[in-house]
Amino acid sequence: MTAARGFVAAGVSAGLKASGRPDLGLLVCETEAAAAALFTRNAFPAAPVEIGRRRLAGGSARAIVVTSGQANAGTGPEGMQDAEALTLAAAQAVGIEPHAVIPGSTGVIGPRIPLPEAIQGVRAAAIALSADGGPAFAEAILTTDSGIKQTMVGGDGFVVGGCAKGAGMIAPDLATLLVYLTTDAVADPATVRAALRRGAAPVWNALTVDGCSSTNDTVLLMAGGASGVQPKPEALAEAVAEASRDLAKQVAAQAEGATTTLVVQVDGASTNADARAIGKAVAGSLLVKTAVFGKDPNPGRILQAIGASGVRLSPEAVHASLAGLPVVDRGRIPAGFDPAAFIDALKDREVVIRIQAGAGGGSATAFGCDLGYEYVRINAEYTT
Amino acid sequence: MTAARGFVAAGVSAGLKASGRPDLGLLVCETEAAAAALFTRNAFPAAPVEIGRRRLAGGSARAIVVTSGQANAGTGPEGMQDAEALTLAAAQAVGIEPHAVIPGSTGVIGPRIPLPEAIQGVRAAAIALSADGGPAFAEAILTTDSGIKQTMVGGDGFVVGGCAKGAGMIAPDLATLLVYLTTDAVADPATVRAALRRGAAPVWNALTVDGCSSTNDTVLLMAGGASGVQPKPEALAEAVAEASRDLAKQVAAQAEGATTTLVVQVDGASTNADARAIGKAVAGSLLVKTAVFGKDPNPGRILQAIGASGVRLSPEAVHASLAGLPVVDRGRIPAGFDPAAFIDALKDREVVIRIQAGAGGGSATAFGCDLGYEYVRINAEYTT
Repeated sequence: MTAARGFVAAGVSAGLKASGRPDLGLLVCETEAAAAALFTRNAFPAAPVEIGRRRLAGGSARAIVVTSGQANAGTGPEGMQDAEALTLAAAQAVGIEPHAVIPGSTGVIGPRIPLPEAIQGVRAAAIALSADGGPAFAEAILTTDSGIKQTMVGGDGFVVGGCAKGAGMIAPDLATLLVYLTTDAVADPATVRAALRRGAAPVWNALTVDGCSSTNDTVLLMAGGASGVQPKPEALAEAVAEASRDLAKQVAAQAEGATTTLVVQVDGASTNADARAIGKAVAGSLLVKTAVFGKDPNPGRILQAIGASGVRLSPEAVHASLAGLPVVDRGRIPAGFDPAAFIDALKDREVVIRIQAGAGGGSATAFGCDLGYEYVRINAEYTT
Repeated sequence: MTAARGFVAAGVSAGLKASGRPDLGLLVCETEAAAAALFTRNAFPAAPVEIGRRRLAGGSARAIVVTSGQANAGTGPEGMQDAEALTLAAAQAVGIEPHAVIPGSTGVIGPRIPLPEAIQGVRAAAIALSADGGPAFAEAILTTDSGIKQTMVGGDGFVVGGCAKGAGMIAPDLATLLVYLTTDAVADPATVRAALRRGAAPVWNALTVDGCSSTNDTVLLMAGGASGVQPKPEALAEAVAEASRDLAKQVAAQAEGATTTLVVQVDGASTNADARAIGKAVAGSLLVKTAVFGKDPNPGRILQAIGASGVRLSPEAVHASLAGLPVVDRGRIPAGFDPAAFIDALKDREVVIRIQAGAGGGSATAFGCDLGYEYVRINAEYTT
């Protein structure tokens, strides 16, 4: 987060989590940053999502304050008051306008954030702010993630940095996905929005979480301009896309219980959206996930998942391979399918499935992971 | 299947399954029956689906022949020839036209049906046909189901009988769902189609299988007319709906690895379709399923799933309860939520979640089940 010049950050333990681990992150831009975000489409958006949506309407922001432990969703008017109180505390602590602070939360849905502890934490974080604070911020926003997820992409004279908290298919409690991206590029709000729409949305919408959008999902980009470099909008969007791909892959790889990362590359679809639908159907299929976990030589599950994507296809035009081994040939399972080679290929930590849809020039890459016993354990025993 | 007068059936072991268990079912109507079916929307329909779709275009049928062990999907032109050869053998064995025989298959995708064994089995089944053969047919169409699923609904002077092979969320290999319904009611093809559309489709489309439509899903209704009674179309549709609900609940309850059946009753949605979408989102949510399995007092997961259904909702109008315990109150988790009572309620074999969407008069009932370690074991180790 602080790889881009002009940003300072911190992460502290405010006592919001029973574990005592870091649970409050603060990021501040030295100047007003052009900013935009993608938010959940869940019908019950969390309080910080509602406030963030409103405050980002103006296209700028100065700071982000994030708590982990409670999602501050399903908390009604009291939840809104809590989130506003937190951003007010942050604004006062760093001397900026409250409406320039964007709140974020992740954790269990229902309980309120312990406000006195959180406000105390905000003050401690404001004191700890530093240009090296990116990793501390990245750690503070985690819940049961197995590690921090950061990225840094160098553009032509500018940098895009970022971090994510997430989930993948293996969602601790609601797959709440928080992604924060910073850049020192000079960009106006419209360019920032376009970079998110073109660069980040296609990546994050192709990451298989649990098929549900949570109450808190947020992908936010702030452009502070400290580099003095104003890249072309396409260059900024591409850097944002690269940072997003890097983070999305880390989310899938670190998902709890996951032993294998699935990368599904789809080409030849009618549109990019069709390609994404096919990729997500395969990467998100429970039967593909469990077969990959069990190293089960069952190529029919890949065929079924492609066909169930909702995309119109001509079966005889469809080909697919897993780690280079043909699994679908003109819409059918190849006669020479080799179960032993298939089992061997599934032993890799990352498995690439390539699909040729035979319908046009659309393409997409979807990310996912396998599903095994550990997923069930984590999600059956989370709050108890 | 033979509870409706005018139908005979049989089930035999043809040697299509390695286990040696019954694997070939034959059902014959004494007279030409008005018939219609709902088929999978998978882009790779199995050979028997393609043939059935074509043959039922005329609105009538005389017989059904079903094999289990191989899905006959992803098998190309050879698979079509195999299915046609099987229906020809059945037609010759019982002395009817081949195009009046509807084929069905379920099992692993890719491998071909061992044809000599299957044809031998068809001949044995034709000899074994009897008015008591319904249960044998119901058994022969199973794969790894834990038991047979049958139903009988008495109408006013007529009967709707039926059986299902399936899956629920807990899908052995692709959740292939085969449902066969018979009635001795007098009905023309249009009435049969309407009864399926109004009576069966809303039920089966609200059963959570694995979120994918398989290559073989089929729901077929034959009306032979042996009762001599011609019910009103609405009465036939209602009997078909009742038979469908009975079977769908059995599918969910018997799903492998399932310990709890989920019944999600949604009222007050804008439309029945909206109610069904909400019910399926809750019954199909991995996070709800694993929480129910783990008896985890986590009502936020129900709130999240309702919100993620894609249906537009006013949060403050939404209420939900589980076994009578409030879990969502005006869009939020009730302050007085009682974890201990929630855990107790989850110990029941069947858990009813009621959702009041607060938007109109649409309603629906969705069926599902929990997800635990046994699901992973079955699906990770299926073909190996």
